[in-house]
Amino acid sequence: MGQHGGDIYSEEIQKQMAKEDRKFLDFSANINPLGMPAGVRLAVMEALYKAEHYPDPESRKLKHALAEYHEVPEEALICGNGGADLIYRLAYGTKPAHALLTAPTFLEYEEALKQVGTKIHIYEMQPDYRVREDILEQMTEDMDVMFLCNPNNPTGILVEQELLLRILERAESRSILLVLDECFLDFTGQEERSLIQKTTEYKHLFILKSFTKMYAMPGIRLGYGVCGDGALLRKMEAAGQCWGISVLASEAGIAALGEGEYKEKAITLVREERAYLKKEMEILGMTVWDGQADYLFFRTDGIRDLYDRLLPEGIMIRRCSNYRGLDETCYRVAVKDHEANGRLIEALKKTAR
Amino acid sequence: MGQHGGDIYSEEIQKQMAKEDRKFLDFSANINPLGMPAGVRLAVMEALYKAEHYPDPESRKLKHALAEYHEVPEEALICGNGGADLIYRLAYGTKPAHALLTAPTFLEYEEALKQVGTKIHIYEMQPDYRVREDILEQMTEDMDVMFLCNPNNPTGILVEQELLLRILERAESRSILLVLDECFLDFTGQEERSLIQKTTEYKHLFILKSFTKMYAMPGIRLGYGVCGDGALLRKMEAAGQCWGISVLASEAGIAALGEGEYKEKAITLVREERAYLKKEMEILGMTVWDGQADYLFFRTDGIRDLYDRLLPEGIMIRRCSNYRGLDETCYRVAVKDHEANGRLIEALKKTAR
Repeated sequence: MGQHGGDIYSEEIQKQMAKEDRKFLDFSANINPLGMPAGVRLAVMEALYKAEHYPDPESRKLKHALAEYHEVPEEALICGNGGADLIYRLAYGTKPAHALLTAPTFLEYEEALKQVGTKIHIYEMQPDYRVREDILEQMTEDMDVMFLCNPNNPTGILVEQELLLRILERAESRSILLVLDECFLDFTGQEERSLIQKTTEYKHLFILKSFTKMYAMPGIRLGYGVCGDGALLRKMEAAGQCWGISVLASEAGIAALGEGEYKEKAITLVREERAYLKKEMEILGMTVWDGQADYLFFRTDGIRDLYDRLLPEGIMIRRCSNYRGLDETCYRVAVKDHEANGRLIEALKKTAR
Repeated sequence: MGQHGGDIYSEEIQKQMAKEDRKFLDFSANINPLGMPAGVRLAVMEALYKAEHYPDPESRKLKHALAEYHEVPEEALICGNGGADLIYRLAYGTKPAHALLTAPTFLEYEEALKQVGTKIHIYEMQPDYRVREDILEQMTEDMDVMFLCNPNNPTGILVEQELLLRILERAESRSILLVLDECFLDFTGQEERSLIQKTTEYKHLFILKSFTKMYAMPGIRLGYGVCGDGALLRKMEAAGQCWGISVLASEAGIAALGEGEYKEKAITLVREERAYLKKEMEILGMTVWDGQADYLFFRTDGIRDLYDRLLPEGIMIRRCSNYRGLDETCYRVAVKDHEANGRLIEALKKTAR
């Protein structure tokens, strides 16, 4: 537990938050620095009266809105209680014998697959944390599923587009379900890289999306998937309750899809602030990877207790040593607004020498 | 889908609701007629700012409140995205080979067990829909789990207390996990029947509870379980994501536990209105069972299309023909406020002759 972001609910952090004069800054969770759009908050408040009814087991209204937004058929959509819900439903609904994962990547894929006894095969991205052409060799006929996170978490690195398309072709021809996690793709400002539209043509492609990061609503829980294989979606729906998506989450999601301007503003802000953070951290001697999402992955020059050094400064960052192949010199920080990022840099100047 | 309550989101019902001059009445869902407490709505609104953070994977604050409320240790609690989430987690986390279910009962137990290939054994409650002493004979050593709903859904009938305690003893001695669903027990005004306190002594007892019905918040999704077997709870927690309970649901639940007066008012209202409905329906020739919850189960005198007859009156009831052993003459109606119940009786007078 608490292995993902920092544990803001722990006694240690709660104490730290209480004694902090300034706002405690959580750089461990990759949430839109603009915060939850007012329109989303309003939608939840208005939805409270509807919440006296059970949720729609088929999420018809939300699927309708998503289908319009992504220009995909409603039948190709599945909604979940956050993206993580869909990862578990996929595991339980398909019980794959063999899965190919990249390393390092988001931990929840492996956690979910462990529950159904899947044999995990690892594609090692060391030393540059990039997916290279040799991943195709590991996409053998005995693989049932592979997970690819684009951009990757925790590194923020994108798969080269031409290679991504070759991976897609290979997955389709070898009947490997390619689960492409595009939860952070919005933030790259390069949505043309999305393979959502390919789901009409490729049946072995499942796109995972979330409202959590872009709309700063991790505590509301809403994710979705796009896939052209209807039988797969039925299996996932049966692998858990039929009322998984709250009425509040559904209405929040519908409102969020209308927040186009907010999204553009966030992308611009993140692009500028990401560049600022990277430059300043490099000046301080950190090795910072070329992340394209709303977070940056870096290595210290040997400092192994950076998390502990920053905590007394009222700043929490993400330790990455629990990812496969990473150690105590590896960290991830969210890209926040300029004031917060400035405080991070000041704190690093003070503690990371 | 939509097999549980009436499908208020279907095109058919939405059309009916739109053309109705009066309020469309959904008698198919068993929700507190007082509606969601204002304190719960307020708590959700206030929690919106906290929803920019991920939920606490360990639900510490909510468990603390529940532990105080029920006077049980926090370690004996597990929270879920509605009670149904916990039913699936229990199935996936324990993968029972054999399960004993009563019939008719809540459909979700069987749906969840099907997903893990459990062999289902049925204890038949026909003709009076009561659990009798002979259920003990079916509690054989090869059973891994049994589900008992008290009061039962859809009938509202309580298990005789002395028999319930014998079932508990038998379950413990034969290592059968007794999943006792007390989701509707609040409404009976007989909470002394709860076996929650027994979880400290009996390790093969799991009590399922929900906020859904008493606090009229089915669209927010919050349920919990009480069990003295910590290893079982860890397995259930691993059988799905760690962020299943939304920040909004958690705060709603904590607020709901403070609504003691509201609860008492609801129990009184339901008791009076249940008696009124039962009497009036019996005058109209229905056979109405002695339900103790916020709903009544009844048989018509041969009318098999009562649902269709009532729909044009702006009233939706629960058809019960999809329960094991029930047919098209079987229905369930929620107990609502006096005005709504009066409209149901008027509509029955008009259509059920």
